[in-house]
Amino acid sequence: MTSANPMDHVFALPEEAFAREGVVATYYMECPPDADAWKRAAGLAIGQSIGTWTHVPGLDASMLERHLGQVVALYETPPRELRSQVPQDDRGYVVQIAYPEVNFGPQLPLLMTVLLGNDVSTSAQVKLLDVTVSPELATALAGPRYGIAGIRDRAGVQDRPLLLNVIKPNIGFDAETGAGMFAEAARGGCDIVKDDELLGNTSFSSSIERVSAYKRAAAEVYEETGHTSLYCVNVTDRPDRMLKAARRAVELGADMIMINAVTSGLGALQAAAADPGVSVPILAHYAGASSTIEGLGAGIASPLLLGKLMRLCGADGASFNSPYSVYPLLREKYAETARNMTMKLGAMRPTLPVPGGGVHPATAARIVEDLGKDVMLSVGGAIQGHPGGATAGGRAMRQALDAASAGISLREYSATHSELRTAIDRWGDTAD
Amino acid sequence: MTSANPMDHVFALPEEAFAREGVVATYYMECPPDADAWKRAAGLAIGQSIGTWTHVPGLDASMLERHLGQVVALYETPPRELRSQVPQDDRGYVVQIAYPEVNFGPQLPLLMTVLLGNDVSTSAQVKLLDVTVSPELATALAGPRYGIAGIRDRAGVQDRPLLLNVIKPNIGFDAETGAGMFAEAARGGCDIVKDDELLGNTSFSSSIERVSAYKRAAAEVYEETGHTSLYCVNVTDRPDRMLKAARRAVELGADMIMINAVTSGLGALQAAAADPGVSVPILAHYAGASSTIEGLGAGIASPLLLGKLMRLCGADGASFNSPYSVYPLLREKYAETARNMTMKLGAMRPTLPVPGGGVHPATAARIVEDLGKDVMLSVGGAIQGHPGGATAGGRAMRQALDAASAGISLREYSATHSELRTAIDRWGDTAD
Repeated sequence: MTSANPMDHVFALPEEAFAREGVVATYYMECPPDADAWKRAAGLAIGQSIGTWTHVPGLDASMLERHLGQVVALYETPPRELRSQVPQDDRGYVVQIAYPEVNFGPQLPLLMTVLLGNDVSTSAQVKLLDVTVSPELATALAGPRYGIAGIRDRAGVQDRPLLLNVIKPNIGFDAETGAGMFAEAARGGCDIVKDDELLGNTSFSSSIERVSAYKRAAAEVYEETGHTSLYCVNVTDRPDRMLKAARRAVELGADMIMINAVTSGLGALQAAAADPGVSVPILAHYAGASSTIEGLGAGIASPLLLGKLMRLCGADGASFNSPYSVYPLLREKYAETARNMTMKLGAMRPTLPVPGGGVHPATAARIVEDLGKDVMLSVGGAIQGHPGGATAGGRAMRQALDAASAGISLREYSATHSELRTAIDRWGDTAD
Repeated sequence: MTSANPMDHVFALPEEAFAREGVVATYYMECPPDADAWKRAAGLAIGQSIGTWTHVPGLDASMLERHLGQVVALYETPPRELRSQVPQDDRGYVVQIAYPEVNFGPQLPLLMTVLLGNDVSTSAQVKLLDVTVSPELATALAGPRYGIAGIRDRAGVQDRPLLLNVIKPNIGFDAETGAGMFAEAARGGCDIVKDDELLGNTSFSSSIERVSAYKRAAAEVYEETGHTSLYCVNVTDRPDRMLKAARRAVELGADMIMINAVTSGLGALQAAAADPGVSVPILAHYAGASSTIEGLGAGIASPLLLGKLMRLCGADGASFNSPYSVYPLLREKYAETARNMTMKLGAMRPTLPVPGGGVHPATAARIVEDLGKDVMLSVGGAIQGHPGGATAGGRAMRQALDAASAGISLREYSATHSELRTAIDRWGDTAD
C-alpha cells in the first residue's frame, strides 16, 4: 500500500455526485486481502475518465474538475474493522463512482465504454451492479417512445396481462409456412405473435417477407373471429440493415419490431428507438445475456442490463428469464429486473416486462402474482405444444391469465375451461 | 416469501433520494439464504419511519408521502444471479434507505433512533455503514464552530502537525499534582495538554479545579520559556452538569474542552457545540466505540461514528485509534475516519483528526505520512514515559513531527536531536 489515505483519491460526496449532472455507477469489487481497495477504486474512476495516475503535460486543474471520475463511496462486505477479521482470500466491496456526463453524453456505446472499459477488466475486478442517471441525462436518453400504454393501446387490452406467442418451431420454415402458424396462434386469442430470437432477417425467411405474409394471416383471422393478433417481427441484423429492415417492416404494417439487443448492442436499440421511421413499439430481447450476468466478480447484474439499460435505450417491452424455468435464475433478480422497467424514473415511460422461458399456465399465474398485471407473458412451447394445437394452446394461456387476474385458482377455473384443463393436466398447476 | 416483487416496497430512486431533503443511510444486512431481502429492507424503511405493514386507521397517503422511509438500493455481495450460487449460510447485502428529514430534524438522538431503532436490532440484522445528509440538514446541524483553523489559531501553529499530550498516569492525583505534570509537558513544547478520558469531573479532581491550577502552570512555563501550552479539560459528566462545568471552565480560561462523546451520547456533544457559553473548541473522545464498531453484522462502522457523526455534531477535533498500536484496527478504517473529518461536506468546517493509542516518534511519523499535516497526534506514554522525563518526551515528539513534516528520516534527524535519539532507541524507528 503506497497510500492508505483515501483523501488522496476521493473528491465528491454521494449527495453531490447524485445531484450532479452525470451518472453514478455502483460496482462490486474484489481485491486480495492486502490490496488498497480505495486506491483500486480511485484507479478505476481516474482510468475511466481523464486518465493517468501521474501528471501529464496538458492536463490542468480545470480539466480535472470537469472530467475526472470520483469515488463517492466504498463499503467492504462484510464490514470488517479489525486485522483479525481479514480473510485469507479475496475481500469484497461495493464501490460507487460518479462520472461526469460531459465525458459521454447520451451515447450508450460510449457510456458503456466508460462503465466497463479497460481498467474494469484489467486493474480492478468488478461487476457493474447499477447505474443511476441525472434527470438531464434521462431526458436526453428519452427512454421508451410508446412504453406500456403504447403497447396496450395497439393491442386493445387495458386491464389484464398481455399474451405474447413465440412461434415454435423457431426456424427452418419460409414466410408462408410461418403465416399458417401465425394464424393458428391468432385464432387462440394471442395478443401479439412474434418471431423467435433465432429467426432473423435470413435467406430462407426475410423479415420483410414475413411481415407481408403474417399481416395477411392476421387479417384473415380477424375476418373469421373478430380478434386481431399483432405481429412483432425480428429485424436483428447489422445495424444499418436492421434499421432499413425495421423502417420497411413498419411501412408494410408490422405492429412491433424485435431486436436482440444484447447481441446487437445497446446502441443499435437506441438508434431504432430514435428513428422516426421506426414508428412502432420495440421489443428488446435478452438473448446472450447469461454470458454477462452470471459472474460474481465480473460482468453486469441482470436487473441493470435487462431492466434499466434496456429502458434507458428505449425498449418499449423487454424480455427476460422467468425463474420458473430450467434456467436457475434467482427469483429476486427477475423481480428487480421488472422493477427497473416500471419504477418511477423521472418522466421516463415504463417498459413492459416480458418474462419468458418455459412459461405454461401455472407459471404464468405465478408470474402475474409476483409482478402484477402490467406484464406480457412470452409463451412458445405451451402454445404450439398444447395437445389440442396452437389455437387451444393460446386459449389455455388466455384462460390462465384471466383466472390469475381474477384471483381464481387454475384448478377451479379449469373446471369450466377445457383447454386450460388439458394444459394443467400436461404441465401441472403449480409453478414449482 | 410472500412477495418477491420489490415494486411493492421501493418508492424512490437514488438520485431523488440523495437530492431530497433528508438522509440516506447505508447498511450492511445479513439474511438467511431463503429470506426475502427486499422485504426485510422495506420493513426496516417502513418500521423506522411511519409504521406498520398493514393499513391502520388515520394513516393516509399524504402522510406516507411525507414520512415514509424508502429503500433506494439493495445489492447482494457477492452479486449472485443463479440458484446454484446461493450459499448454505447467510447472504450479505448493502442496502440504502432514504429517511425524510421532517421525521427527526437536526436532532442527533432522534436521528440515531431512526437509524438504529427497534427494527434494526430485531427484524433485520444490519450494521450502519454510512449516512449522507442533505445540504439543508448539514446547515442545520452546523458542524464544528471552530474546526481545524480555530484550533490552529489558538495554538499559534499553522504549518505542522499538532502535538497533544495526554497526561499519564491518567487518574488518582489532585489538581495541584496534575499541574506539575502539565508544566513538565509544557516545557517540552506540547501544543495542547489534556486530561485522560478516564479523568472526569470527580471528587478527587474536579474539572474546575484543574482549569485554575493548570492555567497557572501554563503561565509559569510561558514566563520561563516563551511557549504556551493550551489546556483541554475533560468535562464529561451527566449532560446538565457537563454543560455547566464546560461554561465555568471557559470562564476560568480553559482553552478547549473534551467530551467522551460515545459514552455521553452524540446529543450531549451537539448541545455543547451549540452552547454560546462553551466558546472554545471541543475535542470529542471515542472511548467506548469498540463495542459498537467491531461487529460484522451489527453496530456502526468506525468511519461513520468516529468521523462523520462527530463532525456533524460539532466536534472541532475528534480522537480515534491509530492502527499502529496494540488495537488491531484496519488501516483503511483509520484513513476513512480521517477522510470523513476533513473531506468537503458542503460549507461545514473540517474536524481535526486526533489519532492516538501507543503513539511514539516512529508511529507519529508514519501517521503524518498517511494523513498529512492537518492532524494532531495524541501522545501519552511516549511523553511521560520518555527516559529523560516528560519535557524530553515532548521535545522528542516535536522533533519527530518536524522531521516528518520535512520528509527527513527519524534516524537521520536524531543524529542532531538527542531527545529523539533516546526515544527511537527505546521504541524503534519504524511503525510496524
